[in-house]
Amino acid sequence: MGCYSKDPVQHYPSKLLESAVNEFSRLPGVGRKTALRLVLHLLRQAPADVDRFGNSLMKLRSEVKYCTVCNNITDADVCAICKDTRRDAGLVMVVEDIRDVMAVENTGQYRGLYHILGGILNPMDGIGPEQLNIESLLSRVSSGEVREVIMALSTTMEGDTTVFYLFRKLSPFQLPVTTIARGIAIGGELEYADEVTLGRSILNRTPYENALAR
Amino acid sequence: MGCYSKDPVQHYPSKLLESAVNEFSRLPGVGRKTALRLVLHLLRQAPADVDRFGNSLMKLRSEVKYCTVCNNITDADVCAICKDTRRDAGLVMVVEDIRDVMAVENTGQYRGLYHILGGILNPMDGIGPEQLNIESLLSRVSSGEVREVIMALSTTMEGDTTVFYLFRKLSPFQLPVTTIARGIAIGGELEYADEVTLGRSILNRTPYENALAR
Repeated sequence: MGCYSKDPVQHYPSKLLESAVNEFSRLPGVGRKTALRLVLHLLRQAPADVDRFGNSLMKLRSEVKYCTVCNNITDADVCAICKDTRRDAGLVMVVEDIRDVMAVENTGQYRGLYHILGGILNPMDGIGPEQLNIESLLSRVSSGEVREVIMALSTTMEGDTTVFYLFRKLSPFQLPVTTIARGIAIGGELEYADEVTLGRSILNRTPYENALAR
Repeated sequence: MGCYSKDPVQHYPSKLLESAVNEFSRLPGVGRKTALRLVLHLLRQAPADVDRFGNSLMKLRSEVKYCTVCNNITDADVCAICKDTRRDAGLVMVVEDIRDVMAVENTGQYRGLYHILGGILNPMDGIGPEQLNIESLLSRVSSGEVREVIMALSTTMEGDTTVFYLFRKLSPFQLPVTTIARGIAIGGELEYADEVTLGRSILNRTPYENALAR
């Protein structure tokens, strides 16, 4: 009918609703529409369930601890992995965050320890060496117990830069620094691999016996 | 090397972390990986910000009110739309939830009131007429102030069933029940429209003057 003008009243029918939507939409990858959907879902839950949700977040943030050895998230002072005497304390794998720890743990192929950087060098986002757990890595290595440092960071420009930076920082200790193998994924087809990966997989080819042992 | 066995230790390095991930992954469309990403994001925020997030959810759930007239979410007893005397109280648009109210309000084309069902009939999910705000719609209509009821529900089988159910419930009151127009979207191309929509748009063709007025 075209005779009604655009109404500039409040967008949300309730201030409480609006503030909850605002909070949710601050999360990464959550837009305002998704936030509203999540909030409306919570409104349909029992108040006790929503209380438990809110409390678990606040409790996590205020009570969480970081392992004094590897910076992993933990409920104690030292995480379960660092505490495990059956693991090889001579191997330290450097990873970006605890999701990488969980991914590597799920392979069941690694029994050394970790060092969680808490990010990778990214000057554009203001993340320099001081923002990462690099000093604690160097002091772990300087203790003399570490035989090998394994770099397991993303193969992005930032990841490669971080590996290069750490490599230089670790060079005075004269111990092997390795990176996890880059190559064609198991089950991947050659024709769909990008040239850089394919090229590297040729340069870093492994003896057939090693491939068989996997 | 294949010599390490799959380790069955805990999946998450912290119980606090695990419970926060569990809570997030209960939200619709949020899997465990996304939940972990969101929780790690919150861990990087200031504790005061996380407290505000948790509190806003708990406060919303415990203090939110539903409009006694239309069931819209509100901070008062009657929502701003129902309170607005400039709006036409003779028109009631039946919608599924408040997202639909917000969508219609954003068009600026409707100056009547709403009635929020709080869902649509869906026997598979256990949602029958008792779970929806149908009784309050009938009592609004029986007050005699309503001139027309406009159905604005999804064009799904459940939506159509709900409209049919409401139509039968409203028939004793002998007032016009309309549905919003279904047809080709503005900017939509005929060749990409499905046959049902295209067929309905032909059956429900409108005089050219009406189309011009929009």
